[in-house]
Amino acid sequence: MPNAVPALREAEPLPQPYLLFLGDVTEPGYAKTAFGLRDWAGERCVGEYACKGATVTTGLPFLSPPQARMLGARSMVIGVANPGGRIPANWIPLLLDALHAGLDLIGGMHARLAEIEPLRNAAVVHGRRLIDVREPPVGLPVASGRKRSGRRLLTVGTDCALGKKYTALSLSRAFASRGIDADFRASGQTGILIAGGGVPMDAVVADFAAGAAETLSPDADAGHWDVIEGQGSLSHPAYAGVSLALLHGSQPDVIVVCHEHGRERMLGHPHFALPSVEDTIDLALRLGARTNPAIRCAGVSLNTGALDAATAQRAIEATAARLGLPVADPMRGGPAFDRLVDACLA
Amino acid sequence: MPNAVPALREAEPLPQPYLLFLGDVTEPGYAKTAFGLRDWAGERCVGEYACKGATVTTGLPFLSPPQARMLGARSMVIGVANPGGRIPANWIPLLLDALHAGLDLIGGMHARLAEIEPLRNAAVVHGRRLIDVREPPVGLPVASGRKRSGRRLLTVGTDCALGKKYTALSLSRAFASRGIDADFRASGQTGILIAGGGVPMDAVVADFAAGAAETLSPDADAGHWDVIEGQGSLSHPAYAGVSLALLHGSQPDVIVVCHEHGRERMLGHPHFALPSVEDTIDLALRLGARTNPAIRCAGVSLNTGALDAATAQRAIEATAARLGLPVADPMRGGPAFDRLVDACLA
Repeated sequence: MPNAVPALREAEPLPQPYLLFLGDVTEPGYAKTAFGLRDWAGERCVGEYACKGATVTTGLPFLSPPQARMLGARSMVIGVANPGGRIPANWIPLLLDALHAGLDLIGGMHARLAEIEPLRNAAVVHGRRLIDVREPPVGLPVASGRKRSGRRLLTVGTDCALGKKYTALSLSRAFASRGIDADFRASGQTGILIAGGGVPMDAVVADFAAGAAETLSPDADAGHWDVIEGQGSLSHPAYAGVSLALLHGSQPDVIVVCHEHGRERMLGHPHFALPSVEDTIDLALRLGARTNPAIRCAGVSLNTGALDAATAQRAIEATAARLGLPVADPMRGGPAFDRLVDACLA
Repeated sequence: MPNAVPALREAEPLPQPYLLFLGDVTEPGYAKTAFGLRDWAGERCVGEYACKGATVTTGLPFLSPPQARMLGARSMVIGVANPGGRIPANWIPLLLDALHAGLDLIGGMHARLAEIEPLRNAAVVHGRRLIDVREPPVGLPVASGRKRSGRRLLTVGTDCALGKKYTALSLSRAFASRGIDADFRASGQTGILIAGGGVPMDAVVADFAAGAAETLSPDADAGHWDVIEGQGSLSHPAYAGVSLALLHGSQPDVIVVCHEHGRERMLGHPHFALPSVEDTIDLALRLGARTNPAIRCAGVSLNTGALDAATAQRAIEATAARLGLPVADPMRGGPAFDRLVDACLA
């Protein structure tokens, strides 16, 4: 795009800390990104900002962009999505407030920030950046297949949208709490905002997808773990290619298979049955062995969010008994999750 | 790109017949595209055109662009590639000759025709199109996984560059010679020029790759065959994701596995052993069954180009005996190829 808005350099982390922008949203379901950032990157969020009339809050202090800048914020993140992914006209003055105050703007909606004329003009005038986390880095390589140093874990799903990101975040946090040097590696937009960097795998040109996955978890110290957010499912009729490229490029030593208890049909593709956890493990190990013959499955992350505690406990135990593997719901933690973490690090 | 060069409408076939442009090439290896077009789309090539000093010829008559236009040509295709994929300055006057004569220009090199100022200006003035077959169609959908009518065959490789395109072309020609309604469906640049249309799978954004494959072989009559050019290999460390998206989106009833006799290491990735033909069949059937449970392997296309006739014959027979499947080298034809065609249509 031929403009003079300063660009993010390749592999440069996102400017942090963040001020979270909540728009004029009154439905909490539209503010998932803001809640995810509060929960997983709270120490890098100085506060929130919103239009008059917004009722959703993250509980963080309400700050004007100049106040946030004073407290160290370097960017304002659009933490809400509305149906259609548009940026309504009444948000623009508040987005301009952020640019005027010296903050960069970060968005991940379908509408590109740099295509909005007043934002572009203000960014040029103030030397601020308009960063779109849907935009993959330029100059991605074709995958080499070369084995990299360090250790890697990839979350692998039976389907989309059932906990691969939260499982990877939970595991990387658990690794760190045991004193292990670990990084969460993000492959989707919300994950990228949380991590402060990453690659939006779904937006990469197909020939470079495995190469993009290779750049996501570079060579590291022998004891270092990259905990990589999975995408899609190897059995998904639309996205399996993305999942396979991510699996091949990640070269995981360990996979954790993520499944939602009771889900029987593919999300958005109800004429496709969900693959079994057993089949998903078998397929991922077979395919993953191509770039890492030592790949193994440490266990299963079971999303039991729809169940009460006792039913969830029974579901976790029954699945563990059936598979002969550690099974846990990371959102519930407890000894089952400790056993899953043990198995990952074994 | 903001210019006034008329664009090709989505799914519009390439303008044909072609005049083949050979540049100033003196090394036949650089003219593979021109030779492929002569061999597989000869009835749609009116002649060739080249700079002074070019020594490579397709054997077609040398025609100036106005002569070619008189004989019905609608476009001139750049049928050569030089190292680096650039368009040298001494080609420009001849490319302008074509635009002046009322021909569109078609290229598939890394350098984009529309980025060359004199070509752009001339295209605008003459209302001609600058068509780049590396450019995927806009508005590709996410795959639906919906089963389409008609029958489909996909060529599946143990590796890149070992005969998937030629096998698909040979099979579609053999089907047609038996009176069967069949289309060759191209998934790569040279194939697209031969077919006059198609989708460059390697250039599609990953999330839309299976959707692109679905659009490549649309609903058809029950007795119609689409013979689809495969890409990459399910065991390729860089391109397996593309291959899987193409397999899922193609929903093939039949696969033919393509292999080069004696190749033991992946092209460009010599630290990876080639997968066996048996493993390739097994993996393709397992993965392909996700979108077409009736998928079957009809046999193997064995590239024996490096062998003498007797050795090739022995290699074909030995492979057929080992696999218990029809095996043929389509370039050699004969009864073995007839048996492979029989098995595809069985």
